[in-house]
Amino acid sequence: MPPTITDKHAHDFKVHCRTQPQDDDEIDAYVHRITRYSDGTVKLRNSNIELMDQDILYHLALGSESHDLQEMFGEVKFVCMGGTPKRMENFAHFIMDEIGYKLPAGTQLQDISAYSYRYSMYKVGPVLCVSHGMGTPSVSILMHEMIKLMYHAKCMDPIFIRIGTCGGIGVEGGTVIITEDALDGQLRNSHEFTILGETVHRPAKLDKKLARELKSLASSDDPYDTIIGKTLCTNDFYEGQGRLDGAFCEFSESDKMAYLEKLRDHGVVNIEMESTIFAALTHHAGIKAAVVCVALLNRLNGDQVNAPKEVMHEWQQRPQILVSRYIRKVLAQHGQLKSLFGHQGSIKSPRRFKLVQQESQAHE
Amino acid sequence: MPPTITDKHAHDFKVHCRTQPQDDDEIDAYVHRITRYSDGTVKLRNSNIELMDQDILYHLALGSESHDLQEMFGEVKFVCMGGTPKRMENFAHFIMDEIGYKLPAGTQLQDISAYSYRYSMYKVGPVLCVSHGMGTPSVSILMHEMIKLMYHAKCMDPIFIRIGTCGGIGVEGGTVIITEDALDGQLRNSHEFTILGETVHRPAKLDKKLARELKSLASSDDPYDTIIGKTLCTNDFYEGQGRLDGAFCEFSESDKMAYLEKLRDHGVVNIEMESTIFAALTHHAGIKAAVVCVALLNRLNGDQVNAPKEVMHEWQQRPQILVSRYIRKVLAQHGQLKSLFGHQGSIKSPRRFKLVQQESQAHE
Repeated sequence: MPPTITDKHAHDFKVHCRTQPQDDDEIDAYVHRITRYSDGTVKLRNSNIELMDQDILYHLALGSESHDLQEMFGEVKFVCMGGTPKRMENFAHFIMDEIGYKLPAGTQLQDISAYSYRYSMYKVGPVLCVSHGMGTPSVSILMHEMIKLMYHAKCMDPIFIRIGTCGGIGVEGGTVIITEDALDGQLRNSHEFTILGETVHRPAKLDKKLARELKSLASSDDPYDTIIGKTLCTNDFYEGQGRLDGAFCEFSESDKMAYLEKLRDHGVVNIEMESTIFAALTHHAGIKAAVVCVALLNRLNGDQVNAPKEVMHEWQQRPQILVSRYIRKVLAQHGQLKSLFGHQGSIKSPRRFKLVQQESQAHE
Repeated sequence: MPPTITDKHAHDFKVHCRTQPQDDDEIDAYVHRITRYSDGTVKLRNSNIELMDQDILYHLALGSESHDLQEMFGEVKFVCMGGTPKRMENFAHFIMDEIGYKLPAGTQLQDISAYSYRYSMYKVGPVLCVSHGMGTPSVSILMHEMIKLMYHAKCMDPIFIRIGTCGGIGVEGGTVIITEDALDGQLRNSHEFTILGETVHRPAKLDKKLARELKSLASSDDPYDTIIGKTLCTNDFYEGQGRLDGAFCEFSESDKMAYLEKLRDHGVVNIEMESTIFAALTHHAGIKAAVVCVALLNRLNGDQVNAPKEVMHEWQQRPQILVSRYIRKVLAQHGQLKSLFGHQGSIKSPRRFKLVQQESQAHE
């Protein structure tokens, strides 16, 4: 698919270039120019927003006039997303330990978007952890509001990372997969939008440099593989992923295997349900983004996930570990990891803390 | 679009008919035949399931061998679905009062699918209340597993009803809208699936008799309108519904208005994000289904929802009230309402119950 720029800035761009953009770098430079203010904060490709009295981010239970979004979120550098509220709450606690972020005495993490009853959001210093639900429409709503949140909060060059689960194609359960290209059901590297009844395709491009950097943080000591490959994004878990065990199945096992093998031959290493919209909207907003998933099974061997709960739990931590290495590295490069670790926390000795808790519980 | 039957039973059907099905009634009769056992319980259009050792309904945290699904769900007659866990929990408590269902002393409703961390499910006797998340893929996963649940539980002719919120087109906020036909972004009365890389359209047909019956239960005393009309189902809340206030907007206000007016001229009265898949999969499974939504605003007047919280809360009860009238009517017809009401509950006098609670709280 040739690169396309669909918005109303395209005219200015054409005048500027005297030609259609010729290559990806040229498009990237153009997108960067129209999505950043000179100080590096996020600029929207929608001039209506700054003219509005207030902008309500319904699905986040936040508003531009009801909340001081810059005060609340201005320091955010990493937006990590995943399917379920529970996984993102776990990740918030995990990354808190990993970057040594200390909460003030007597406080705990709060679900910032609890009153939306839709998404959950936890903030750990520069890291925002948000659940996105299942499927591209659910992610689409969240992305619009998260990008607007970055704008209202004047965030500087935020990085978005999706942490997910997936089915592997020819890779074993437990393998960590970094998405190189996100493909739709027709194996196009784009996401199809319907806007005012018209079909629009936007490139589902992720940041290749970020993907390589994440890959480089896999350790040879990790007892599992971390690979880069193409990801198929579907609109369904059963028929849409060639499973034989849905409420309906109108194909045979050999049809299914032929399809999965066709995917493998095309370079597809995993299947999930969110990557194209995540890639297309971050790319359109000029935001660096990556998708890191763990495979829960090898689909060439079956449809149902049979790994025991403890094993699955450990597997789901693997993308979180990789992403935390990246976040630690970036914060360290900016000298921010030390300052976070420098904060005085409440717990001086975890061992003695545990003993005190146990003592306390014994005295009713 | 001509009626189509895409599954592998089509051959048998053709032999049986000696021709392609000619009309909707013929198709409905065919679908009913292949989706019901002779005793009226749900039969799957997937023969693989009965050959499996166990069928894990991952996203519901249930399994065919881990749970006695017939014991748990065999009595279910109504499956009510809506977007958020909170709305469906509220509906569960509401319908419990409405049908006079009594819980045993010392018990409360439990979220049956809590450990899936994805959907929430509450059971109130013959009524199952389930959240489906946002967008068609999220609904798709749930529908596959709910239809399989109906099969495993040997439910008799269950009825599925979606209770939602929507944007109105030319109708005021607070209006209750029963969907006549669900349309996709190209205004087709079908849902597009991608199965093994092939595009398949299935009719997004709802039960017209059920829609009329629901409409007949609107009361002239209701201080709001209840109407029947066409529903547009989109894959996004912002650009996909012609909103000017997303993170991106590449069309003008007059483009937007022209589009909304085109929808109105086509008979579209509301826009939401779930109806086509809900209609297509229930129809494919031979399950009677309806969609009842309340409009949160008239999109011809704006994009942002500005009604106060209390007003919105009252509006969201309106589809619930209509659906509860229907459920009460059906149960009454089968003599089941009386038997539910006949159960002895814990509370003899709500007024005295409240007084005892207050007394108790005062004594620390």
